Amino acid sequence: MPINPALAKEFENVVGKEQVFTEEADLHSYSYDAAVLTPVRPAIVAAPTTQEQLCKTVKLAYENDLPITVRGSGTNLSGSTIPQSNGIVILTNRLNKILEINEEDLYAVVEPGVITAQFATAVAARGLFYPPDPGSQSVSTLGGNIAHNAGGLRGLKYGVTKDYVMGMEIVDHMGELVKTGSRTVKYVTGYNMAALMAASEGTLGVFSNIVIKLVPPPKASKAMLAEFDDVNKSSETVAGIIASHIVPCTLEFLDNNCIRYVEADSKAGLPVDAAAILLIEVDGGHSQLVEEDAAKVMEVCRKCGSTNIRVAQTAEEKLKIWEARRNALPSLARARPTTVLEDATVPRSQIPAMVAAVNAIAKKYNLEVGTFGHAGDGNLHPTILCDRRDKEEFTRVEAAVDEIFDVALNLKGTLSGEHGIGKAKAKWMEKETNRATIEFNKRLRLALDPKMLFNPGNKFV
Amino acid sequence: MPINPALAKEFENVVGKEQVFTEEADLHSYSYDAAVLTPVRPAIVAAPTTQEQLCKTVKLAYENDLPITVRGSGTNLSGSTIPQSNGIVILTNRLNKILEINEEDLYAVVEPGVITAQFATAVAARGLFYPPDPGSQSVSTLGGNIAHNAGGLRGLKYGVTKDYVMGMEIVDHMGELVKTGSRTVKYVTGYNMAALMAASEGTLGVFSNIVIKLVPPPKASKAMLAEFDDVNKSSETVAGIIASHIVPCTLEFLDNNCIRYVEADSKAGLPVDAAAILLIEVDGGHSQLVEEDAAKVMEVCRKCGSTNIRVAQTAEEKLKIWEARRNALPSLARARPTTVLEDATVPRSQIPAMVAAVNAIAKKYNLEVGTFGHAGDGNLHPTILCDRRDKEEFTRVEAAVDEIFDVALNLKGTLSGEHGIGKAKAKWMEKETNRATIEFNKRLRLALDPKMLFNPGNKFV
Repeated sequence: MPINPALAKEFENVVGKEQVFTEEADLHSYSYDAAVLTPVRPAIVAAPTTQEQLCKTVKLAYENDLPITVRGSGTNLSGSTIPQSNGIVILTNRLNKILEINEEDLYAVVEPGVITAQFATAVAARGLFYPPDPGSQSVSTLGGNIAHNAGGLRGLKYGVTKDYVMGMEIVDHMGELVKTGSRTVKYVTGYNMAALMAASEGTLGVFSNIVIKLVPPPKASKAMLAEFDDVNKSSETVAGIIASHIVPCTLEFLDNNCIRYVEADSKAGLPVDAAAILLIEVDGGHSQLVEEDAAKVMEVCRKCGSTNIRVAQTAEEKLKIWEARRNALPSLARARPTTVLEDATVPRSQIPAMVAAVNAIAKKYNLEVGTFGHAGDGNLHPTILCDRRDKEEFTRVEAAVDEIFDVALNLKGTLSGEHGIGKAKAKWMEKETNRATIEFNKRLRLALDPKMLFNPGNKFV
Repeated sequence: MPINPALAKEFENVVGKEQVFTEEADLHSYSYDAAVLTPVRPAIVAAPTTQEQLCKTVKLAYENDLPITVRGSGTNLSGSTIPQSNGIVILTNRLNKILEINEEDLYAVVEPGVITAQFATAVAARGLFYPPDPGSQSVSTLGGNIAHNAGGLRGLKYGVTKDYVMGMEIVDHMGELVKTGSRTVKYVTGYNMAALMAASEGTLGVFSNIVIKLVPPPKASKAMLAEFDDVNKSSETVAGIIASHIVPCTLEFLDNNCIRYVEADSKAGLPVDAAAILLIEVDGGHSQLVEEDAAKVMEVCRKCGSTNIRVAQTAEEKLKIWEARRNALPSLARARPTTVLEDATVPRSQIPAMVAAVNAIAKKYNLEVGTFGHAGDGNLHPTILCDRRDKEEFTRVEAAVDEIFDVALNLKGTLSGEHGIGKAKAKWMEKETNRATIEFNKRLRLALDPKMLFNPGNKFV
């Protein structure tokens, strides 16, 4: 929908002419994200370069009733950065400065558009550690990570993005700057708004500067790959490791389908005949502790029936293991035109039941499913390989996804562990909770966004 | 203010006659908490025994415009459980069941009235660990801890109460049950309401069943006491330990005034001539790691000028060290009729500046101040010993508290690290934030409590 030229001019006055985009080709670039959903072109795109410009952009958009979609790198899988056709996309890619890394007090202050992996590298150069490592980390932004409460491979031991948000400045619907949280570990002044912003998907306000918690890095680590001739044995191993009170920093699962696609793609030397593999890394403050934990993990693997365990002897071997894991999604995505990546999550003891159910559902609907994911925190990614243009097949895909959600909820799990609700899952929200919960959430949302212009159509319907 | 007898009868119908209190003596018992504020007797007190009764009690109170104050054990220091004279106190002490401890998935489900220390003991008996240990733990409840986001001695390494709330059922203003969070580590379905409830001080809804995160316990620990002849040297030691990337589970500070009061009271063998002491405990998954960390801590202590370091050789000696610390407040409280316990908190590197400022303020206003607290996370408790009945003295106390807050905020700190805002600090909120922040918080509050009956007079004014 074309924007009123006078209004476009006003945005140019706020952020500068070269930071406003209204051409068809530009609008197309911001019409989609990583979700399997129909693209929508916004009316206008603006890229503020300062906090002041950000506030004014929000104020101008809100006053003129433009739906507001904030976009970092658009890597999300829930459709939450697909804009409205009469709306504005506010880009954060020019708000990408690391304002402070405080080594004494273990925090950093960043603008929302800082790329996650670049931040982690900058922090590591100062001898500190930012653990959250979503799959998209090399392109996604910290603001986007917080808006979706992104997870990653290290969630089991180190938690997820929300656990690292200490404070934030939020631009409210009037363009005013709201302050929440602090630079101190302990803080009970005001509501815990910084935590509320995690997973809010752009529906409660616009993130400005963020205070992020840092931790000392582990001093030693050890990675290994355990093969299994039976999926059940691998999932029992996961439960066994947790029950032995070892918390690996990473505990990842790949089923045979994934192994074969990754190996075909990357020639990493994965065992293509294994029914499943677990990729496990333990880390800690002392090499002897890490050695002992690794030995215990291997013992559990053997007891639960692992047919072979390889330990990475060098940094290169370790890197190779994790590259193989990180290639799971791209390798699967190359197999068929459409990749439907789910992230229904269950309590970790329910992993065996969940894996069995996913395989049964795939068989029932005659679909090819590869399952990989963060087994240690119950967060699997059953990935359906299909072609969206094949309507008959896609109907079966949608039925299978429905059933996967039902199974996850029956196992006391949740619809989404780390990908978000967005447009993709909003209609299922009530199934997990109840009507009173949806109404409670909506009342809160409406209070902070009285015109419902902050990323409408997402999170709740 | 006497309650309408017909309405009292209705509450009796909901929770049973013996669970409703309207007698003067009973009302008096629920008129105060641990804050230095004027008591207020409520109109009625009710103690539901089931979730269903809790929902109906809230609904009945809300429909009849009674201000609602939920009370666990009333140990809070902010006045947030002092009720309104026309209001109801809902007691949670009969909602005190541990509903589940799940060893496979590392969580527990509890009712809000479970006593914190009893919960920690029950969890330990199952080989797991609930780290938050507020000073009040032997009497305070988990619901109250969450409502105030209680801290404690282990905050530095293990975080505070909010870090252990995975999910919750909340009774809304219509008595409906709202579901938030889950039993899984990763969860992005709906808003992060469970986190928002932490530190909400009863103003957003009434807590029902809570899902609490558990962790494996440390396998080894070591405690020590370091003496200093100069307060600055002790606070520099704190910064030095953090800078060396060791994260002790506990790192506590006591100044000379505290040392003398505790020693007079408990004969624990504390060094009464020391200007300050640090009580330090390191723990971890491996005894060698703990030994090495302890050695490094001692080295930092010596380098920063500690005159003597004692290491607890036995479990009894360790217990004695922590008993001495836990006695700091009771020992100080016995010195004078009134104890004004503050908890302004600063980034930990600012501890030396904060300690110096508190001592200067004490001198300026001619007040006796003992300072102790969680030095590792910048959360000190300057405690003013006074007599509230002495109006001239108390005016000086209030002026001193004002100045302590100003200093904390100037050092990029916060008004309250763990005690809460309640009635005691509500008027200072805008000083730390700004008008837009207060309005943003109020809009949220009003959306979830349209009649402003959930603990009015607290958190914001």
